[in-house]
Amino acid sequence: MNIAIIGYGGVGKALVRLLNMQEEVLAKDHLHIQVPYIVDYYGGIYQAEGIDLQQLAAFTEKEKDITKFTGGSADITVDHIASDKTVDLAVIMTPTNKETGQPGADYVRKLLTTGKHVVISDKGPVMLYYDELYRLARDHGVQLCIGCTTGGALPSINGGLMDLAGGEITSIEGVLNGTTNFILKFMEERACEYAEALKEAQEQGIAETNPTLDVEGWDTAGKLLILTNVLMQEKKTLDDIQVEGITHLTAAEVAQAASENCKYKLVGKTLRKEDGQLSMTVKLEKLSQDQLLYSVEGKNKAVRYCCDTLGELVIIGGASGVIPAAASILRDMVNIHRGYQFVK
Amino acid sequence: MNIAIIGYGGVGKALVRLLNMQEEVLAKDHLHIQVPYIVDYYGGIYQAEGIDLQQLAAFTEKEKDITKFTGGSADITVDHIASDKTVDLAVIMTPTNKETGQPGADYVRKLLTTGKHVVISDKGPVMLYYDELYRLARDHGVQLCIGCTTGGALPSINGGLMDLAGGEITSIEGVLNGTTNFILKFMEERACEYAEALKEAQEQGIAETNPTLDVEGWDTAGKLLILTNVLMQEKKTLDDIQVEGITHLTAAEVAQAASENCKYKLVGKTLRKEDGQLSMTVKLEKLSQDQLLYSVEGKNKAVRYCCDTLGELVIIGGASGVIPAAASILRDMVNIHRGYQFVK
Repeated sequence: MNIAIIGYGGVGKALVRLLNMQEEVLAKDHLHIQVPYIVDYYGGIYQAEGIDLQQLAAFTEKEKDITKFTGGSADITVDHIASDKTVDLAVIMTPTNKETGQPGADYVRKLLTTGKHVVISDKGPVMLYYDELYRLARDHGVQLCIGCTTGGALPSINGGLMDLAGGEITSIEGVLNGTTNFILKFMEERACEYAEALKEAQEQGIAETNPTLDVEGWDTAGKLLILTNVLMQEKKTLDDIQVEGITHLTAAEVAQAASENCKYKLVGKTLRKEDGQLSMTVKLEKLSQDQLLYSVEGKNKAVRYCCDTLGELVIIGGASGVIPAAASILRDMVNIHRGYQFVK
Repeated sequence: MNIAIIGYGGVGKALVRLLNMQEEVLAKDHLHIQVPYIVDYYGGIYQAEGIDLQQLAAFTEKEKDITKFTGGSADITVDHIASDKTVDLAVIMTPTNKETGQPGADYVRKLLTTGKHVVISDKGPVMLYYDELYRLARDHGVQLCIGCTTGGALPSINGGLMDLAGGEITSIEGVLNGTTNFILKFMEERACEYAEALKEAQEQGIAETNPTLDVEGWDTAGKLLILTNVLMQEKKTLDDIQVEGITHLTAAEVAQAASENCKYKLVGKTLRKEDGQLSMTVKLEKLSQDQLLYSVEGKNKAVRYCCDTLGELVIIGGASGVIPAAASILRDMVNIHRGYQFVK
């Protein structure tokens, strides 16, 4: 399989290392991956016979500008990938813009249209244009995989698509945001207020300097939106979700919950109501010990589906870090190689 | 897709009802299933254009002998299915014989060899001959699906194959037996001895009159064996597993565990040791609240995988009953229809 990598940040570098690391595992699957193109901000690298990934990994430990590597040039762009018929699949890891979806959106369109499978980690285009991109993939007989966008290593899309194949999902619940998990856990353990827990999360590099997207629930909302549109065949937007964050939670409320053997989690939830309409919310929920999402904390994420025929399914996992994130991209590539039609 | 159903007991009947129920859901997948053959103990039914499943379901509510239905005959056997080139897939639901694997084993061999995909719920042939059957499927370019054998609706095989694709599984842990879950839970709640909990389970029809396979751990061992052989590419047998049941557990031990906020679960576990060898055990484990398998009880089952690149994955689910069991068979059929190569 000839693949092109677009975006060479943390996860892109991890993917390059991973392709090296897992060569033997992939060979058992008769999957041999070559990377003729890597494109990022500075330009790109092209080597028809496949870039030497081990050398590249070593080279870019010190050097940021990939165009200085063998085969590198400032002129190599996504257009070269699009026009190269030997490329089977493109991995798109562009930075996320949730308003415009750019530049990822145009890259996906271009690459699907020119007959390449696409695996994408950029949530922007998926949140804004999934329906259009899905149809584009179908019309061009290629696959579009987005498993990385809804919890990284957590197989949330896989779980809904493959593990509940033949059934209909009636509800989706998810604890999908690591930063809020950390803050809530810290508030429980230290019996402290939100502001102190946030400060700790920022000092540990877990929360961003501007933590709004995480703590106000928008990261969770984005993931819930993707899960709902993909797994329940909907065309919702962020505006359809009632979103509430964790910033108003007090130490007293956490202590009260603990005295009832309960814990607060930030839960994204989509429910099909009796009238067929969907209710979509992101909010703090007080979960008791007998609820399976109760014990999801720290780095773990989880999703819970209810299905008409297969009952309840809870998936917990999603190790943090760039290697698991890259591994979730590789997972999609392997499942495409195994013939799975994500798009049909 | 033209399918043949072999075995028309509880799950077979549920599958027939399910194919009716899910017609619309399957149509969204462009999957139209016809059933020209059903074969069981009495003989079979053959209707080239597809058996009317709704009529059959109504008919067999009162009548046991399926050969009395339109198209029925005592002469219709698995051989007819094998020699019919229009059959794409056979579902084998023969009663399990863990010593010989028969009659299921010969049926799988015959049907794979004649180019039919096989979805099988009979653990016998899978425990005894998986490696042979896998190679047979591969050599004849067809799929062999066994998702139903390791926890029914719980997507344990799917989870290991698809959700961890591209990674290597380093350990498998499972709470895989509903009967022992029930007994352990009853002992906790009633603070009673094992014998009393077993009696209750038998009265409720949850434990069998001869409960040995469940309570001595052999059912769990069989499922662990299949998971290990399939997901870790091993060729182990039951003899390789150290098996211990729950019959020796006392009310005092359960109370002691509860005072430590712990619970006993019957856990099947395969670990790859540092020397590369596997350790395989089935035994009671005292789990604490922070272990994700702690809250798996009642009808739920669960499996926990550790993977080199994707971290920890816990899957909880597996609704009991004939419809979820049939739905796990349908899931495999849909995933085959979607092109997934379980065999490669």
